[in-house]
Amino acid sequence: MALVVMKFGGSSVADADKIKLVASRVVEKKKAGNKAVVVVSAPGDTTDQLFAMAQNITSNPPDRELDMLLATGEMISISLLSMAINFMGQKAISLTGPQAGIIADTSYTKARIKKVNPKKIKAMLAKDNIVVVAGFQALNAKGDITTLGRGGSDLTAVALAAQVHADFCEIYSDVEGVFTTDPRVVKDARKIEYISYDEMLELAGSGAQVLQSRSVEIAKKFGVEIHSRSTFSQNPGTIITSEENIRRKNMEALLVSGIAFDKNQVKFTIIDLPDIPGIAAKIFSRLAKVGVNVDMIIQSAAVNKKNDISFTVSKQELKKTQIELDKLAQELKASQVICDEHVSKISVVGIGMKSNAGVAGKMFEILHKKGINIEMISTSEIKISCIIDERDLTIALEELHKGFGLSKK
Amino acid sequence: MALVVMKFGGSSVADADKIKLVASRVVEKKKAGNKAVVVVSAPGDTTDQLFAMAQNITSNPPDRELDMLLATGEMISISLLSMAINFMGQKAISLTGPQAGIIADTSYTKARIKKVNPKKIKAMLAKDNIVVVAGFQALNAKGDITTLGRGGSDLTAVALAAQVHADFCEIYSDVEGVFTTDPRVVKDARKIEYISYDEMLELAGSGAQVLQSRSVEIAKKFGVEIHSRSTFSQNPGTIITSEENIRRKNMEALLVSGIAFDKNQVKFTIIDLPDIPGIAAKIFSRLAKVGVNVDMIIQSAAVNKKNDISFTVSKQELKKTQIELDKLAQELKASQVICDEHVSKISVVGIGMKSNAGVAGKMFEILHKKGINIEMISTSEIKISCIIDERDLTIALEELHKGFGLSKK
Repeated sequence: MALVVMKFGGSSVADADKIKLVASRVVEKKKAGNKAVVVVSAPGDTTDQLFAMAQNITSNPPDRELDMLLATGEMISISLLSMAINFMGQKAISLTGPQAGIIADTSYTKARIKKVNPKKIKAMLAKDNIVVVAGFQALNAKGDITTLGRGGSDLTAVALAAQVHADFCEIYSDVEGVFTTDPRVVKDARKIEYISYDEMLELAGSGAQVLQSRSVEIAKKFGVEIHSRSTFSQNPGTIITSEENIRRKNMEALLVSGIAFDKNQVKFTIIDLPDIPGIAAKIFSRLAKVGVNVDMIIQSAAVNKKNDISFTVSKQELKKTQIELDKLAQELKASQVICDEHVSKISVVGIGMKSNAGVAGKMFEILHKKGINIEMISTSEIKISCIIDERDLTIALEELHKGFGLSKK
Repeated sequence: MALVVMKFGGSSVADADKIKLVASRVVEKKKAGNKAVVVVSAPGDTTDQLFAMAQNITSNPPDRELDMLLATGEMISISLLSMAINFMGQKAISLTGPQAGIIADTSYTKARIKKVNPKKIKAMLAKDNIVVVAGFQALNAKGDITTLGRGGSDLTAVALAAQVHADFCEIYSDVEGVFTTDPRVVKDARKIEYISYDEMLELAGSGAQVLQSRSVEIAKKFGVEIHSRSTFSQNPGTIITSEENIRRKNMEALLVSGIAFDKNQVKFTIIDLPDIPGIAAKIFSRLAKVGVNVDMIIQSAAVNKKNDISFTVSKQELKKTQIELDKLAQELKASQVICDEHVSKISVVGIGMKSNAGVAGKMFEILHKKGINIEMISTSEIKISCIIDERDLTIALEELHKGFGLSKK
């Protein structure tokens, strides 16, 4: 008998029929001899609707009150799902995040889980219940209901799986798992059977949003094996596990596991900065102060005591970056600030790179052969990212996907 | 500086504009130098919508899960109202029933409040907050969220007022207060300035639904003065208080305070029952067993060792009463069961009756003068009820209203 945590996203519980389908998946699992803890998100676009209700009152609601409001979405899912499971003849009981013992820090709207007290869940499981827990929400030390930020239900599921010592954690959504790249762009994209936590983190950070990044970090920390799969099919999905497990299972690891991309980037270049120590620190600490998150950074070698610095930010932060850079350029006597909105980031990710130095060269060659210009490069132990012209993105994706042997056999 | 509990019903918080109006009423009260605890119901028909969602899953949802679902309605109101009050520049904080320390017994869907622990509310008031509490919901000893049944928000308000020692409890709705009779039927109906708890209970029990009965009982028990008034006007409403307070304020108490009626009655008569001891007990315990609530009962004097028994039930219980009576009539060898759906109950209520024996006679005379036949009579210390033909109801109401001097001056 296994103990399984199953998590279903909002699109899986969007209406009564879908809730019944989820209930039947859960009942199947139970009848197969497992114990089950089920984590659910708010139905469909309920969270957006609740947010809109708050906006009708004020554009700037207090975070504590917003959390009280948003938490109702998951309470609707858990009660309805428990009703559906009970109707199918299995005992089910719903618990809010606070009732389930999910304790967070004292911040609101994106609180961090501090600990999980699984006492009540364990007691309910011992009485043969399927325990249905509200994702995305927690209790803080003040006794307030708080929420965990976008994708917080994944985090709830993984944190619970860690604390109840679940055998595995199934994350159900409307996609079949993790793909070598976005199947909507590259027809040949293939579902990945196994992927390591680190690769998953690099893919998520590069714009492939299957799982919330913090939940993957927690899964890695506590060694929770995640199975990302579809609510609407019986096909196996993707197992996210440790590098060691993957190596054990699959001796001929691929050099590259997947290719991620991000169209949401803007490149800024500051031209002719004086080459004095601490100037980069000054620029990026000023940007951090106004809340700009910088992604890639390149500083050219100094020529005639002058430097150029290029970096990328997300499109949402274009405006405030522009304002701050104009001030900085004047203060620092730079000659020019250039902004390029028509760039994309493309990244190859794979643990195979660790033991093979040829990946970067191969990537650059594949792009070069198609006449694609590389504007910026950054590398990590298991990822190489390039900034290219956004018009080249699709062809670059297709060529890299083929070139690294990721296409369907 | 007074401490006030203000309660707003669902129609008062049905949309963003109404919530803002409620917020402005609360802010006014605060700015006038009061401390305020605000109790709200779920917005508009939210509770019905949530109930319908449950029905889409199963026609017979577990009560515990239904309570989890229904409790979300009030959480939406309290968070939105707190946002609106904060937006108007006053500090407000929302609390669910459980957070507010409302503790109930272990039944669901119509739990009874066992105690109130006002510690958190008092702490929040001390920090100059307006405390916005979810009506209708409580916490039980298992840690479950439960609901208090129809009108439960009134109960929350009165129970809180008792426990925080509020100076008074204002119950806001879409009516201006308690009227001498229904103004939609009798044009001349007048708003009552003061009414005693007992009169209010008799009026509510006789079909005048301004306040939930249990909340009036609690108010009487703890001496909480209730002010029933309209959200949408600044007019004073009706004060519900003790008989002693009313006598102190108003030496010339009226004989009759109000006239209630109930069109939702059915009269059953069992003809020719054998006159043996315990037969009435048998009939009414059998009816109680199948969940029939009997209102008025009349047993005629025995003639030839035969008895007739008449009683009334609400129209919703007609069918199950009929089924049970048919069985009983056969068992008891009664000759016939007659059912009359076309009756109404009319009641005159007033503490003045206690010291004046002439009220019943006057009531019968007024009805007799108009040729109205009285089919059943029942009396209590402060109420006289008659069952009459439903076609006579309007004229009876008008005549009694005039006859007892209740019309506008």
